[in-house]
Amino acid sequence: MDRPGAVAELRAVVTRFARDHAAGLDRWCVALSGGPDSLALAAVAATAMPTTALIVDHGLQVGSAAVAADARDHALAVGCVDAQVLSVVVGSEGGPEAAARSARYRALDQARAGAPVLLAHTLDDQAETVLLGLGRGSGARSIAGMRSHDPPWFRPLLGVRRELTHRACAELGLAPWQDPHNVDRRFTRVRLRTEVLPLLEDVLGGGVAEALARTATALREDTEALDAMADRVLDGIGDGGLAVSVLTPLPGAVRRRVIRGWLLAGGAVGLTDTQIRAVDALVIAWRGQGGVAVPGATPRTRLFAGRRDEVLMLYREPV
Amino acid sequence: MDRPGAVAELRAVVTRFARDHAAGLDRWCVALSGGPDSLALAAVAATAMPTTALIVDHGLQVGSAAVAADARDHALAVGCVDAQVLSVVVGSEGGPEAAARSARYRALDQARAGAPVLLAHTLDDQAETVLLGLGRGSGARSIAGMRSHDPPWFRPLLGVRRELTHRACAELGLAPWQDPHNVDRRFTRVRLRTEVLPLLEDVLGGGVAEALARTATALREDTEALDAMADRVLDGIGDGGLAVSVLTPLPGAVRRRVIRGWLLAGGAVGLTDTQIRAVDALVIAWRGQGGVAVPGATPRTRLFAGRRDEVLMLYREPV
Repeated sequence: MDRPGAVAELRAVVTRFARDHAAGLDRWCVALSGGPDSLALAAVAATAMPTTALIVDHGLQVGSAAVAADARDHALAVGCVDAQVLSVVVGSEGGPEAAARSARYRALDQARAGAPVLLAHTLDDQAETVLLGLGRGSGARSIAGMRSHDPPWFRPLLGVRRELTHRACAELGLAPWQDPHNVDRRFTRVRLRTEVLPLLEDVLGGGVAEALARTATALREDTEALDAMADRVLDGIGDGGLAVSVLTPLPGAVRRRVIRGWLLAGGAVGLTDTQIRAVDALVIAWRGQGGVAVPGATPRTRLFAGRRDEVLMLYREPV
Repeated sequence: MDRPGAVAELRAVVTRFARDHAAGLDRWCVALSGGPDSLALAAVAATAMPTTALIVDHGLQVGSAAVAADARDHALAVGCVDAQVLSVVVGSEGGPEAAARSARYRALDQARAGAPVLLAHTLDDQAETVLLGLGRGSGARSIAGMRSHDPPWFRPLLGVRRELTHRACAELGLAPWQDPHNVDRRFTRVRLRTEVLPLLEDVLGGGVAEALARTATALREDTEALDAMADRVLDGIGDGGLAVSVLTPLPGAVRRRVIRGWLLAGGAVGLTDTQIRAVDALVIAWRGQGGVAVPGATPRTRLFAGRRDEVLMLYREPV
């Protein structure tokens, strides 16, 4: 076989990641679903450092306890020094997927006992995240990708294709769990993976997943740089009004981030691009127009951003 | 009919655009293909200001001269004060579509005689541009959208759906030209329009074209702000080396733009993200590594970016 083994390739990726980001650590955790990505990661991570597998049982599917127990056995078989099943109760806030996600991260954060947690997101997951965000249309904020190093969360596989973890499992003789959700067309992510990405690959001529992942990284860097500039401006303003003279010298991309941050700090929620641009027009296209209604955190308060002389003010009105 | 007429709606859009961007002008041009978008735009623009239609005949399709002559007749019929057919010779540089595009813009620029040129790009074109750029994966640079106001080019329809121009033509009793290329599946853009966008709309639940257009605008603003910051840094450095101390305080998104601009100024062409990041590693992950080969403008020169002490240097080597 000319091609290096998948396990060897994954091991090189994880070793390089550990050298760059885990120097001085003497243990880490792996979030394990039992699926091929996380199982391959657990197997490879365990050869690099003492590894604890953390298995979250969301209790949402029939038989989830058995899946979790099976993942636990697999983890110990591939060399993890410990494997814990974390049972969580999933709420409903933000929809079922978001609620499961926050319950999962909370449980992992509590169980990791100071060690970082390796997550098995791959380049394919990153590409799907970009496509999901495109539908939201909130610019870089919604399509910027996941970070590979976001302590305590480490994502060493963000640069490798999912197919590699599947081959690695096969090489290791492992039979990972196949989550039925992964082929359930009711999930947007599944349709992006099985319908949209293959069509885009066909139309755009290949390499689309890699291109989307590169885009995700570049946009994350862009938006982080601009967010940091806006934060520095926000740090310099006091409570109360926002002086127009602070805003006008800023480039639009920074200015609108400052406006967004100022509105959020004043109690706004769920801001749309249209609302932020309407407030921005009070600054850059001022012709005496009235205040802009923005959604407030409580249903009993209405917020208005208006301009008085050279200052933007946020007014609260009981409904 | 409850709904305002499509012509009235388009007229409101163009009038608002003229108020914001064309104050003081007494004439403008419209780039007219004869298709529904540009024909509706010409008809509406002509009611706002004396309008010259500029029709580019690329000479690429059989019968293109007749199509151009027909567009000319249409332009005069809808009230344009003048209509000129511009015959161009399309080269081959950068592929057939890019070559036609640069010949077209060159001819329009020569013929406009100091007036701005209205282009009939719609929100749908903007959305397709984002999807096209995703396949390139060069971050915001490749997916940032077209500008609505980019003198001498004006794009007043960038916020309206293509469907509106089609309805406007029907209302006006116009029979616009149907470009056979618009249904030719050999063109990437056609497949994005007819296959990818409808599937994305279905999977992501609608509003995708609008979301893509919003994203295009936001990313253009982001990348322009960061480009401007990088340009200011580049303006401050002289010829020759690039001091590491200039680069290290910059956020990554700006630092890599400075590196890109410095390499381009030194004669590099067709830089990839990987090459720029390798040069960036000479700054932020310096451990004495060797120079980075970057593609030069002439095949007889090889370029290397290397670090000597605290300075990045660009070396030229004859091949």
